[in-house]
Amino acid sequence: MASQYIVEGDNPDLSQERRKATFRVDSLSELLYGVEHLKSRRMIAKLVDTTPELHDTFPTTFMSREEKVENAARKVTIRKETASGSLLRAERRYFIFLVSTLVMHVDGHPLSLHGVMFVPLLMQQTDEEQRQKWLPRAIKGEIIGTYAQTELGHGTNVRQLETTATYDADNEQFIVNSPTVTSTKWWPGNLGKVSNYAIVVAQLYVKGNCYGPHQFIVQLRDENTHLPLPGITIGDIGPKFGINTNDNGFLRLNNVRIPRKQMLMRYSKVTQNGQYIRPIHEKLGYGGMVFVRSVMVSQQALFLAIACTVGIRYSCVRRQGEITPGSGETDLLPQLHALSSGLKAVVTHQVALGIEQCRMACGGHGYSNASALPELYGTAVGGCTYEGDNIVLLLQTARFLMKMAKMAIAMNMQSASVTTKYLFRDRPTKSSINQYSALDHSVLIEAFEHIACRLIFTVYNRIENLKKCGRTREEACNECSVDLCKDDYFSGQQVAYLRSVVYKAMNTIRPNAVPLVDAFDINDREMNSVLGRRDGNVYENLLQWAQLSPLNKTDVITAYIKHLGPYMKQERSKI
Amino acid sequence: MASQYIVEGDNPDLSQERRKATFRVDSLSELLYGVEHLKSRRMIAKLVDTTPELHDTFPTTFMSREEKVENAARKVTIRKETASGSLLRAERRYFIFLVSTLVMHVDGHPLSLHGVMFVPLLMQQTDEEQRQKWLPRAIKGEIIGTYAQTELGHGTNVRQLETTATYDADNEQFIVNSPTVTSTKWWPGNLGKVSNYAIVVAQLYVKGNCYGPHQFIVQLRDENTHLPLPGITIGDIGPKFGINTNDNGFLRLNNVRIPRKQMLMRYSKVTQNGQYIRPIHEKLGYGGMVFVRSVMVSQQALFLAIACTVGIRYSCVRRQGEITPGSGETDLLPQLHALSSGLKAVVTHQVALGIEQCRMACGGHGYSNASALPELYGTAVGGCTYEGDNIVLLLQTARFLMKMAKMAIAMNMQSASVTTKYLFRDRPTKSSINQYSALDHSVLIEAFEHIACRLIFTVYNRIENLKKCGRTREEACNECSVDLCKDDYFSGQQVAYLRSVVYKAMNTIRPNAVPLVDAFDINDREMNSVLGRRDGNVYENLLQWAQLSPLNKTDVITAYIKHLGPYMKQERSKI
Repeated sequence: MASQYIVEGDNPDLSQERRKATFRVDSLSELLYGVEHLKSRRMIAKLVDTTPELHDTFPTTFMSREEKVENAARKVTIRKETASGSLLRAERRYFIFLVSTLVMHVDGHPLSLHGVMFVPLLMQQTDEEQRQKWLPRAIKGEIIGTYAQTELGHGTNVRQLETTATYDADNEQFIVNSPTVTSTKWWPGNLGKVSNYAIVVAQLYVKGNCYGPHQFIVQLRDENTHLPLPGITIGDIGPKFGINTNDNGFLRLNNVRIPRKQMLMRYSKVTQNGQYIRPIHEKLGYGGMVFVRSVMVSQQALFLAIACTVGIRYSCVRRQGEITPGSGETDLLPQLHALSSGLKAVVTHQVALGIEQCRMACGGHGYSNASALPELYGTAVGGCTYEGDNIVLLLQTARFLMKMAKMAIAMNMQSASVTTKYLFRDRPTKSSINQYSALDHSVLIEAFEHIACRLIFTVYNRIENLKKCGRTREEACNECSVDLCKDDYFSGQQVAYLRSVVYKAMNTIRPNAVPLVDAFDINDREMNSVLGRRDGNVYENLLQWAQLSPLNKTDVITAYIKHLGPYMKQERSKI
Repeated sequence: MASQYIVEGDNPDLSQERRKATFRVDSLSELLYGVEHLKSRRMIAKLVDTTPELHDTFPTTFMSREEKVENAARKVTIRKETASGSLLRAERRYFIFLVSTLVMHVDGHPLSLHGVMFVPLLMQQTDEEQRQKWLPRAIKGEIIGTYAQTELGHGTNVRQLETTATYDADNEQFIVNSPTVTSTKWWPGNLGKVSNYAIVVAQLYVKGNCYGPHQFIVQLRDENTHLPLPGITIGDIGPKFGINTNDNGFLRLNNVRIPRKQMLMRYSKVTQNGQYIRPIHEKLGYGGMVFVRSVMVSQQALFLAIACTVGIRYSCVRRQGEITPGSGETDLLPQLHALSSGLKAVVTHQVALGIEQCRMACGGHGYSNASALPELYGTAVGGCTYEGDNIVLLLQTARFLMKMAKMAIAMNMQSASVTTKYLFRDRPTKSSINQYSALDHSVLIEAFEHIACRLIFTVYNRIENLKKCGRTREEACNECSVDLCKDDYFSGQQVAYLRSVVYKAMNTIRPNAVPLVDAFDINDREMNSVLGRRDGNVYENLLQWAQLSPLNKTDVITAYIKHLGPYMKQERSKI
């Protein structure tokens, strides 16, 4: 089928693929985005294409973090002028989806949190007077703000936040304070170097009573010099797994005084004389979270769409391996090759999964390079690809197993390898594993051998049947590729036994968890992780570690001097 | 139990954990490593600890790639002098395991490939004369070498390599050449800026006949100036997902002439007059691969051990959430919250898995930042943690479902949410899905509702039973946490149906694969990926992209001028 995606000079393999389409591509795009949305997407894409100031002069991946932030600041501040009306109108609607990926890519930018948190909160959580005072300044860009909730020691659980905001009725002020190391605000996007305001979440204290977390507008930096205000200690938290164009930051408040009217008072209120007025419904603040999460789902869909596009196009371009091998290598695989190939593939895969599981189990801090886990994953997961791509290796092991299956069926015992003797043995037709024997090694091995046999012979028979239907051995193998790469599985009953044994084992292991990893004997230098330190003194060391981030060399970064500062000043000078 | 890991000033939570151990930590370490190996590990660790020159002056994660390579070059070249005898002896044994993580961390270093590939190949694949000529120079460090096999267009399949080595009998030389863009050597570690020699794999041509891939020692850079020799175009391939301290490189050979004796001739030979002598066994070259893969398995185990250590220690230190919640939030979850929470968790998890699958499906090039996939993954996977940790969100959704299950059992229809009406309906006790209906949406939804019901009521009953055994609701829920986070599953029979339908669907989808992703309408600027380009002109653009790597600004990098050059020169000047 003809496609607008086919252009002269394209890789012919790709054009060939496009001609095979059995549907009209644009119809699907319209279905996916909606006709109007698709039009806007394309209009904006064209606008960006023809606006050189919105382009990178250099691929951002080659830039240092300082350069990335500066480059993004340049682009984010010129948007309004160059792309004027249409882009600006569309911007609100597509802020996250389109502008951020088209102009900013996926790595974040200096106004991320300003757009998705600061402005929306000023819309939703302010009373009328507050809205009139703050919202126009924020929307125009006279000030840049963010949202500071999470703390060094507290992510998910808002109720455990330690930052306090104590009302001083005599001065009609709140005193905002970080009483402990773990109360340091940590992670908020664009907090480190870019924002001069933040909505800070703190425990509200009035007349000695604590009324739980509330939101307060706190000025962080001087509007003219951009230097941190007295009582404010602030900076970048260092490189992360991703989103490094964002200056995620830390913030310590040393009894900083703010006017009473900077508590967001749409729902809860504190009166001048210190009366606390409860919101009608406790959870009115949570609507925003539901919104952000549903936005995230679409954003994540775009991420996966990008990955699929890259993966599928590239796989049609590359010429990798052949279904029918040119030589007889795969028929002569020694068992050691089969074993090391399969083992390498399974181990690298499981290790990568395991590291990510450990990383995510560390919550937000696992995402910071301070945990050492992002770099560790990056290194370990390379092993899935280098020294033989895992899929290729699994298929080689699988071919070897098919050969062994054939011999087992022919009872050709002499040709069997030591590693696959179990294919020749008489076995019970059902695994004998149960809730009592599920931790017995020999029974476990028996179970694995049983399952391996069943899977191997199932696939073998499937291939033989396909061959009988006229396919070549190679074609038949190729069609079974997915099966050949499948993990073993247990029956539902057996899974239930194993699961209950796993629960019991967890109870036994739990008290030994730390000593068990201590036994790996990995010292702090080797581990290179602030989170994994032997002494557990994590938070003060996270704070110390972050001071070394190059973004923290100066209080005011070049991105501000060159772009963000002039941008805000210009907006302020407009009448 | 007393533990050497407990030290005064430690985080008390961690000490508490260590006291609970029911075994002696050192006994397990001895079991894991072996007594002798453990002794060496600790001896070397101590040596490294007390040798300040082996330490980083600054966390490497804050360094640019140039600084990382320079820092690693400094450390790798002083090893021999400072840590003298013992470290040197141990180095051979623990090269990958210990020295690289203790001194070099996991991010690679300038002598990685020299140690694991160049030297071993000079040992295994040379004839006696070659071994005497090259091996001592390589072991002493007079030269730095690497192994150049993979090409831009060819990774796994060695037989398809395009680089040629044509024998010129008149001059007793091989002419090594890169005839096409796709024949550019690409990925070899330390090839870009560090190595002055490489063992290059090329198709051997003698008297017009091709004898397949063979290995040749090729000098890349002048031993004194380190500048690339005539006919050699060489450089760094740019930043990657990980291992960025390694200058993985590209290499183009423009009819470079090398002496006949620089073909590795232990097994295959070419005589002076151009007679080709076959090896006794074709696969004699593959032993190294089996070795490297088994080394990798241990290395990966260490990676996972590090991750487990970080994860477990940190999780004992942080105070995150409580099993018994302080307020009634979790009992009052609105269905929208439950739905958005569950959806966010499932979507971010699946997206992250999907991106990694796409990335790995791109083979080696998916690991390069040129694919855009490493940064995309880094960004997307953050979504598993921010805006509510996925595990926490899944548990919230699960608690909501448990509440709905209770209502369904009480037939309290009025309180049921719209999203869980299916819990109240009469359903067939078995799913009706089969091979004919497996693509029918309504049947699929029925199947999912069936499975959701079964799982929800199974878990509900399990919790009720545990509660009857005297646990609190919160304790019971906590013990079922793993179940509550489990995906749905099908019966074996149904999986078989679905699988066969998936195979058929794949055949339908396959011809539409590229058009389907074209329909995402993601343009090249938005995608920002060399591999995913609309035009499919991947390889020339990869080559062009890599030129921009900051490491390629100069032919000779600071790491050479300051460390590697003086190091090799000093070794050469020794008698």
